[in-house]
Amino acid sequence: MRIYDIILKKRNGGTLTKEEIACFIDGYVNGSVPDYQAAALCMAIFFRGMTDAETAALTDCMARSGDMIDLSRFGGLTVDKHSTGGVGDKTTLIVAPIVAALGGKVAKMSGRGLGHTGGTVDKLESIPGMRVTMEREAFLRQVEAIGIAVIGQSGNLTPADKKLYALRDVTATVDSIPLITSSVMSKKIAAGSKNIVLDVKAGSGAFMKTPDDARLLARNMVAIGKACGRNITALITDMSRPLGTAVGNAIEVIEAAEVLRGASKGDLYDVCAALATEMTMLFAGVPRAVAEKQVADAIESGAAFEKMKEWVCAQGGDTAWLESAKYGDGAAFAVPVLSPSDGFITSMNAEAIGAAAVILGAGRSKKEDAIDHSAGIIVKEKTGGAVKKGQVLACLYTNNAASAQQAKQRYLDALTIGPQAPEKTELIFDIIR
Amino acid sequence: MRIYDIILKKRNGGTLTKEEIACFIDGYVNGSVPDYQAAALCMAIFFRGMTDAETAALTDCMARSGDMIDLSRFGGLTVDKHSTGGVGDKTTLIVAPIVAALGGKVAKMSGRGLGHTGGTVDKLESIPGMRVTMEREAFLRQVEAIGIAVIGQSGNLTPADKKLYALRDVTATVDSIPLITSSVMSKKIAAGSKNIVLDVKAGSGAFMKTPDDARLLARNMVAIGKACGRNITALITDMSRPLGTAVGNAIEVIEAAEVLRGASKGDLYDVCAALATEMTMLFAGVPRAVAEKQVADAIESGAAFEKMKEWVCAQGGDTAWLESAKYGDGAAFAVPVLSPSDGFITSMNAEAIGAAAVILGAGRSKKEDAIDHSAGIIVKEKTGGAVKKGQVLACLYTNNAASAQQAKQRYLDALTIGPQAPEKTELIFDIIR
Repeated sequence: MRIYDIILKKRNGGTLTKEEIACFIDGYVNGSVPDYQAAALCMAIFFRGMTDAETAALTDCMARSGDMIDLSRFGGLTVDKHSTGGVGDKTTLIVAPIVAALGGKVAKMSGRGLGHTGGTVDKLESIPGMRVTMEREAFLRQVEAIGIAVIGQSGNLTPADKKLYALRDVTATVDSIPLITSSVMSKKIAAGSKNIVLDVKAGSGAFMKTPDDARLLARNMVAIGKACGRNITALITDMSRPLGTAVGNAIEVIEAAEVLRGASKGDLYDVCAALATEMTMLFAGVPRAVAEKQVADAIESGAAFEKMKEWVCAQGGDTAWLESAKYGDGAAFAVPVLSPSDGFITSMNAEAIGAAAVILGAGRSKKEDAIDHSAGIIVKEKTGGAVKKGQVLACLYTNNAASAQQAKQRYLDALTIGPQAPEKTELIFDIIR
Repeated sequence: MRIYDIILKKRNGGTLTKEEIACFIDGYVNGSVPDYQAAALCMAIFFRGMTDAETAALTDCMARSGDMIDLSRFGGLTVDKHSTGGVGDKTTLIVAPIVAALGGKVAKMSGRGLGHTGGTVDKLESIPGMRVTMEREAFLRQVEAIGIAVIGQSGNLTPADKKLYALRDVTATVDSIPLITSSVMSKKIAAGSKNIVLDVKAGSGAFMKTPDDARLLARNMVAIGKACGRNITALITDMSRPLGTAVGNAIEVIEAAEVLRGASKGDLYDVCAALATEMTMLFAGVPRAVAEKQVADAIESGAAFEKMKEWVCAQGGDTAWLESAKYGDGAAFAVPVLSPSDGFITSMNAEAIGAAAVILGAGRSKKEDAIDHSAGIIVKEKTGGAVKKGQVLACLYTNNAASAQQAKQRYLDALTIGPQAPEKTELIFDIIR
């Protein structure tokens, strides 16, 4: 079996066998398949696609390319959530404590932020003292004891995906549905949870710009998850504007705590409740109505917020900070963005708003960049909001005065303000099972 | 300008600008564009194609990536011929002396053989004493003095093509019409002749298996040649069987000499006459009928064969050998291939016959392989021929007895013999101007 013949077969529209896919992935990881042949094959896959069987084989191979985390001691209670990435997306910080409070086992490895989307690990690190690295056994013991542990990716998880993603990133082969699916799902499969809920974002701040594109991806990921023996559901949710009001790190944790305390009930609450409901349906095997009520009760009763504190405490974080921190703590400058005119916000470019937060110091342009955890944006008015000239549209927090001016302009450029209120759009477009 | 954006643009079906193509080629040659990005772009070009303007820009960039041979001292008389490669294709050895005898200036750099197709330089080296390397100025002086010089590729001609072709060869991106066109035409443009005739082969022994595919490629090459300021014509010729009777090195030179002496008048003569006529029409600017007559006269009068001897002599070759050499000289074994049955040869797999000649020692499987100049095949019966069981179909020459048995089987496998004579097919399918 030669990699050349595999490239040629895919290029000509053929269907690769499991063995051919294994030859590619194993060879790529061990270095016998060079980058240039992998790049040619990825581009051929971009054009020719893959069948579900091919994508499942690719996912399986990539998952097995490194460590596989064994969560079998938790039986069927393990539950994971994956978001395809958005702006202001702090749902993990909210849904993980909710489902842990309801008896789910959340053994989660999360990523750091890059570009306009943030990362859960960066957000967690804005809690003073919070540790996001842990030995494997300590990680599992914490899940056993309190039902939840969230750390950065550790160990040798899916090295095939790491190597292939880095290559796709520089060869314009990222946005291929089978390649995205196998990248995401291989990590989820290796991470070991039996139940998985996907939050596939659609809109200006997401990778998939339309609900239809997001649906295609979600269907593919659900099919592959099932083929790999997992219980899996995908929600298609709106990312045409930031989710919730905070875009940053510390301020997103603060907003998450507010939702868990029951003090905030907007779009963020609704998306988190929907995600937590699906997760509960899967791990607890209860009907929707039951799961919905359990989720609402976990927040109402304070159990979810207690679980968050327990979790933060277990990872060395300062729970007092969690109870008392305020937007803007630690930021030398708080700069309001004022509306240039009367009217309605008719659209927001969420990706550009994410980029504005990066300018303020909340994110990274390059992997090596440091993050200012206190920096970020509180969005005061979102799409559909009526605004008056001079009204505060958002508040920018930063420790760099010069960047504030640049971010302000970027923020204003990201909005369109028109004379008429836009049509109301869906928050949750679809549920794919 | 970033190579990533160029890959993305082509992948999405965009048309690259001259500047973008230059960014790719210049960067690839200087090493700032890595192989994996070039491979991804080649695969995107395979799927999306290129406009004539893009292909012309790519050709021009590749031609300018190294030395450009200046033939301006010869005015409009320079004339080159390029074959897309076939089995038994010794046309250069015949048409070059003919057109030189008629006043054309043939300053030609030729290749070596690889795989099932032979190379002119290898064939020339089977003439005792023949030199195929020469300093640039000596090469041009010989063209000036006798109208003809043929050497191996020397100097730093089209390094971009060398590097890119090696990459395409291992990434399944060879058979893309714009990439083939730019590869061939960049070499022709850098080689400097004003007039170019292409011999685009179609059939089992050629890269293009059907006349329609060959036509597509020929039209593209002619368009690009014109866009680069050359006078250019393409013939589509048959390669569903070997051209002429000899497949090898010394034996092909001997067959070429026979044609030039007027002693052989089959398909090889006809294709060479057609090519030489087109070449003469271009460099001499005479009508077809005049060119045809001049070509026929050059052979009849002995002028063409005299020119061949003059050429061989100028490059140190033994003209006595040219007059007296016989098929099989220097080969220890002459093995007949006998017909297994009565009937008609209904088809020949020319590529497999080329491969049989390689087995005998006449060609290379790898670049480093040595060649046995005396080895090869004399084809006695071709497609359409009536054969009797036991009749000699071909004679194999080799110095390796074991390889003879293997080549014999390969040769027989390459033929189909049936009860009915096949339909006669064209020798020259089309002329593209």
